[in-house]
Amino acid sequence: MKINAQRLLENLDRYAQIGKMGSIGVERIALSEEDKRARDLLKAQMIDAGLQVHIDQLGNMNGIRKGKREGNPVAFGSHLDTVYSGGRYDGALGVLAGLELIQTLNDNQIETEKPLALVNFTNEEGVRFAPDMMGSHVHAGMADLSDILNSPAYDNPNETVGSCLKSIGYDGEMEPGAIQFDAFYELHIEQGPVLELEQIDIGVVEQVQGIYWTRYKVLGEANHAGTTPVYYRKDAGFAAAKIQQFIGKYTRRKEGKVLTTVGSVKLSPDAINIVPESAVFTLDVRSTDEALLRKAQKRIDKYIEETVEADELNFEREELVRFSPVRFPLSMTDSVQIATQSLGLTYKRMSSGAGHDAQMMAHFCPSTMIFIPSVRGISHNVEEFSHDKDVENGANVLLAAVLRKSSS
Amino acid sequence: MKINAQRLLENLDRYAQIGKMGSIGVERIALSEEDKRARDLLKAQMIDAGLQVHIDQLGNMNGIRKGKREGNPVAFGSHLDTVYSGGRYDGALGVLAGLELIQTLNDNQIETEKPLALVNFTNEEGVRFAPDMMGSHVHAGMADLSDILNSPAYDNPNETVGSCLKSIGYDGEMEPGAIQFDAFYELHIEQGPVLELEQIDIGVVEQVQGIYWTRYKVLGEANHAGTTPVYYRKDAGFAAAKIQQFIGKYTRRKEGKVLTTVGSVKLSPDAINIVPESAVFTLDVRSTDEALLRKAQKRIDKYIEETVEADELNFEREELVRFSPVRFPLSMTDSVQIATQSLGLTYKRMSSGAGHDAQMMAHFCPSTMIFIPSVRGISHNVEEFSHDKDVENGANVLLAAVLRKSSS
Repeated sequence: MKINAQRLLENLDRYAQIGKMGSIGVERIALSEEDKRARDLLKAQMIDAGLQVHIDQLGNMNGIRKGKREGNPVAFGSHLDTVYSGGRYDGALGVLAGLELIQTLNDNQIETEKPLALVNFTNEEGVRFAPDMMGSHVHAGMADLSDILNSPAYDNPNETVGSCLKSIGYDGEMEPGAIQFDAFYELHIEQGPVLELEQIDIGVVEQVQGIYWTRYKVLGEANHAGTTPVYYRKDAGFAAAKIQQFIGKYTRRKEGKVLTTVGSVKLSPDAINIVPESAVFTLDVRSTDEALLRKAQKRIDKYIEETVEADELNFEREELVRFSPVRFPLSMTDSVQIATQSLGLTYKRMSSGAGHDAQMMAHFCPSTMIFIPSVRGISHNVEEFSHDKDVENGANVLLAAVLRKSSS
Repeated sequence: MKINAQRLLENLDRYAQIGKMGSIGVERIALSEEDKRARDLLKAQMIDAGLQVHIDQLGNMNGIRKGKREGNPVAFGSHLDTVYSGGRYDGALGVLAGLELIQTLNDNQIETEKPLALVNFTNEEGVRFAPDMMGSHVHAGMADLSDILNSPAYDNPNETVGSCLKSIGYDGEMEPGAIQFDAFYELHIEQGPVLELEQIDIGVVEQVQGIYWTRYKVLGEANHAGTTPVYYRKDAGFAAAKIQQFIGKYTRRKEGKVLTTVGSVKLSPDAINIVPESAVFTLDVRSTDEALLRKAQKRIDKYIEETVEADELNFEREELVRFSPVRFPLSMTDSVQIATQSLGLTYKRMSSGAGHDAQMMAHFCPSTMIFIPSVRGISHNVEEFSHDKDVENGANVLLAAVLRKSSS
């Protein structure tokens, strides 16, 4: 049994019109008007496909399909929200392939042993409200709902998650996580270049990297660039550059086992002729190995302390995120591999560099992910693209894996 | 003969109320409402002191005091505009000490041999309209007036120098530089820490450093920080950090003979989890030695090319400013030294690290500067401060030097 590729691709295109940006991009920020329209469409399509729809207090959408037996459903899905200037596949692929899976079972009049659940998680991207992977985080019982409901928008502290959920009418009744899942599958684009480079159809995702995010502020003294002798300077920008260089070299020494990135640097006062008095920069560290992750963080923190001290400066440090690596159970990753092989497709067992809802769900039930190739590895970008054939392959692997899991 | 210190300090305080910021700071941006009010006050005070006031087409204010003879006046002055969050001494000291000089001569009924000219130059700071030292630049015949009149405001391209001059009523009749000067003296705060550290009263300024300003844009590729292997990255931020480190080390090797500063760095997209696709940074290079200045610029440019090429990136380069070092004539610096010694004050022959109107005027007539100590070397900052005693000393040195020069 195969999914209806045409129907899925048309539906992907339909959702891509909601918040359309550029020729193929999408900007559909969590809890915005566009998010509401996409949710309304999903709800209608869920009902149309015969699902019983439950909205929880955080706006997570669960569409339940009865099985022959009672019990915990086999779940699958992802998120419908995007980043600013985002793409049409990141998140939407997993939700709409899940819907297509259900429509295919309906077409073939198949009733599974276990129930099924199609899930759309709230605010996976976390670009307007922290934290990211918000809906799955709370669903998995890893954060307090009321704290999260009070989370203010970055750009407008007067808007909170709670107030926006109300505005768009998705402040539901159900307690998050009330429906226990038997398992959770997330189909997603790779967001990296490996599958395309190696010309492989499917990524069998064994683990999600741990993510440590830290923000630092180096404090020096602003001084005139022309009149201040070097010995008198407390140049926060120079110190930050040395630190940035160390961080960049560190990852290159670790040959891929630990990834370190400085994505943001802001100097102040940021004027051509003033020695910087402060430098705020961010550090993103990732590894599938928690020990290596901790060691990298510690080594970098030590270098920062030493450098700041040697230059007679000060610094502040703020931990933003500490997500541990997550390893998916063999039974789940094997089920994806078997499904892939049964379809005659090539696969590679690999890690996910990006955080995903499945990473949170792994704390809730046996979970895993299925990757399809990203053209040039680009995502979080209006040019994000995956080939139709890969979209179809991914959806078929999802269908095969879910079918097998829901009949055992 | 000595100036009236009380009157000068009161007048400094009077002008410091125009655009007052914080307890002692001043924000009086060129061609703003505050600038107009300060100019109006100066014009009234000039007329009150018996000067004939000429406003040129760029708003430069020349107040002429007749001498016994006809001929080119001995000029002195500075600027009344400040930077954002600036101080009360930078520029205003030179103008108001000049006014005080004239009032003192009036009090003592002294008529000098040569005429005198008190000057307030337009837009020395260049924080809203480029270039800096605008008024003296044009007065000295080094830039085209109509180009300058069309210079748009950084924050609002619909406002130009010309339109703003009209708004505040200082689009004068006279051609800039129509009045030739016999000599030009500028009293100014040091804006550096040396005089205070060495406990010296007066800086006899022999030269102004050359200033090279360049802006670079390193171009890489934005990529997901979690999913992009190191070998696949084109990290513009990492390249910029290596360059920044080289620039910082360069000046430390040159033991003060060449000053290099990176004051501004902007990454894009500037997100914690995205490898930077571009890094825009600025380079400020200064030296009193033009050969060293050129060599430094060349060496840094070479390092930038090599680094960018090694990382397989690209870059763009924009020259913003190229001011050559200026050496003031011995006759002028000696006249300041003699004046200082005659008052029993200590002095140090030194360079100016900052650009000044006198640097432009040096191309127009024999010029020089007189420095007084800056507390902690701080300027371009609301905490800019100089002691009353130093203000008085500086004004007396100016008076003595101008008296001697205008009677020869």
